[in-house]
Amino acid sequence: MTDRRVWKLVRRPVGDIADGDLALTTEPLPALAEGQFLLSIRYLSLDPTNRIWMSDQEQYMAPVAIGAGMRGGVAGVVVASRKAGVAEGDVFGGLGEWADHIVSDGTGLSRLPTIPGIDLATVFGTLGLVGPTAYFGLLDIGQPKPGETLVVSAAAGGVGQVVGQIGKIKGCRVIGIAGGPDKCAFVVDELGFDACIDYKNTDVATELDQLAPGGVDIDFEQVGGTIMSTVLARMKLFGRVPLCGLISSYNDTVAHEPPAIWTMMLMRRLTVRGFIVTDFAPRFGDAAHELAGWMLAGKLKTRQDIRPGLDNALVAVRDLYTGGNFGKLLIEVTA
Amino acid sequence: MTDRRVWKLVRRPVGDIADGDLALTTEPLPALAEGQFLLSIRYLSLDPTNRIWMSDQEQYMAPVAIGAGMRGGVAGVVVASRKAGVAEGDVFGGLGEWADHIVSDGTGLSRLPTIPGIDLATVFGTLGLVGPTAYFGLLDIGQPKPGETLVVSAAAGGVGQVVGQIGKIKGCRVIGIAGGPDKCAFVVDELGFDACIDYKNTDVATELDQLAPGGVDIDFEQVGGTIMSTVLARMKLFGRVPLCGLISSYNDTVAHEPPAIWTMMLMRRLTVRGFIVTDFAPRFGDAAHELAGWMLAGKLKTRQDIRPGLDNALVAVRDLYTGGNFGKLLIEVTA
Repeated sequence: MTDRRVWKLVRRPVGDIADGDLALTTEPLPALAEGQFLLSIRYLSLDPTNRIWMSDQEQYMAPVAIGAGMRGGVAGVVVASRKAGVAEGDVFGGLGEWADHIVSDGTGLSRLPTIPGIDLATVFGTLGLVGPTAYFGLLDIGQPKPGETLVVSAAAGGVGQVVGQIGKIKGCRVIGIAGGPDKCAFVVDELGFDACIDYKNTDVATELDQLAPGGVDIDFEQVGGTIMSTVLARMKLFGRVPLCGLISSYNDTVAHEPPAIWTMMLMRRLTVRGFIVTDFAPRFGDAAHELAGWMLAGKLKTRQDIRPGLDNALVAVRDLYTGGNFGKLLIEVTA
Repeated sequence: MTDRRVWKLVRRPVGDIADGDLALTTEPLPALAEGQFLLSIRYLSLDPTNRIWMSDQEQYMAPVAIGAGMRGGVAGVVVASRKAGVAEGDVFGGLGEWADHIVSDGTGLSRLPTIPGIDLATVFGTLGLVGPTAYFGLLDIGQPKPGETLVVSAAAGGVGQVVGQIGKIKGCRVIGIAGGPDKCAFVVDELGFDACIDYKNTDVATELDQLAPGGVDIDFEQVGGTIMSTVLARMKLFGRVPLCGLISSYNDTVAHEPPAIWTMMLMRRLTVRGFIVTDFAPRFGDAAHELAGWMLAGKLKTRQDIRPGLDNALVAVRDLYTGGNFGKLLIEVTA
């Protein structure tokens, strides 16, 4: 192996991600320096936040530089190592690039555990990425209590699936919001949500008024836009809003935020808290442990949307912003 | 004593409170029923929230009914009692009416302690009302840590004075925002704030950039409007916003909220939490105890703005919305 393939950021997208914004290039693999290892990437995670990293808007990490490899979550196997304690065959996951191989000194990566009964895509995608996001956002910020009403937007997506099921484990009444009858049927029939609102085919406000006439205790917010405004208008006293994402606005060329609700926040004593999963990094192990336990006990299921081939990353990532994915979106790089 | 004087709500104000919106009326005092007592009111508290209670907007208690006595915080002395355990001379404070006497069964009232060295106006106004608001809003929601930067709007007002001084006790760098050089000099020279921005005579954004070039950890928000937006734009990562009031909008006839900052809340992981002091009622005693200790130790001073005469309540309350008060606004009813 002398070359690697890597998607590089050619220019910052304007609005939707266009074909020429990233380019799949082939470049020589550098020789490993002392302390480095070569990771052969099995899975690349595609996440809503990728669009933020491509931009130079205010964000929580440095934007990807023009000309640099596109940042992404990766899971892979060590195929060569000059780093003490790291051997061929070791499995790592964490932040890498949209590539088939990366040379790393281990920064941003950690070992992925082998868990009998849970495949690597799930260990990586669910336990390593969307699971902790759901876990800390719902439990630390949402603070669900039995009998409360939890609304989850993007309910069939990677994070939303886990949020709703943790909500059920904690005794909440869980209402998902998803696009289309298939996704809605999935989260109710397969994942055990109490109800799901198909935002593409029904009026969210009308449905929510019927499903939650007493209002909403927790809005696990991933979407923004009019759906967010519709849910927020129905928050109960002392409601909580874990603010996880605003995907509906990530492709905006002109910022249009959902309207402010300062007066409502005051009168209903709402708590709104923005978070990024990496804020909770020191506790990832605890989350993965409990999530895996729920999985093995049959209380937590997740659906992955796995697409084969690194070539397809650019087409696939766009699906996140149109609802074209169904579950945690992964590229199987080595397929 | 056979009559009482009481301000009644004649109609809901539109915009600023107008002369005829409330009327000072004289009416016969009813005979005390078993379980009731007659409270002679010494002090009436005038608070920004009074304007909310006069309206029928979304709020946190029932609006005052048209024709009813105007609700207000009161402190007074029992002058007749048919309630077991309550004797003439007992001192009570809590929710009452804009009146010189009220007949009560004790609902909404509690005994005010006698604290050597602290006068009744301060026990009532500071320890009983604005103190707990400042205490719980800053400590529970703001969670100040030594070295952090705290911005307090309405800094010379009842709540703001206490917030800033607790911030200093907790080791924060405290920047007040107040209207005019006298108020600014007061909070810096008398109360020990590190700095104060005179929003009437300087540009808040420019001043704040100079005083807090690294940004703001805690915005104790009481005002709303452009001052709020200016401070929020400068929040640091993981900043907290105890949302205590939005006084600049209380007289609005058309709602205009400060712009939404959802994206910023997410990227900077801000926490915004609305609260009303009564949410913390079970812990009022703890707050009063610690606040009194700070007062007696010389670490906490407060300035009251005491106006004589129940007749002046309507004129005085308007000052809250124009910055015409200087400290906690009280009516000395029996003066």
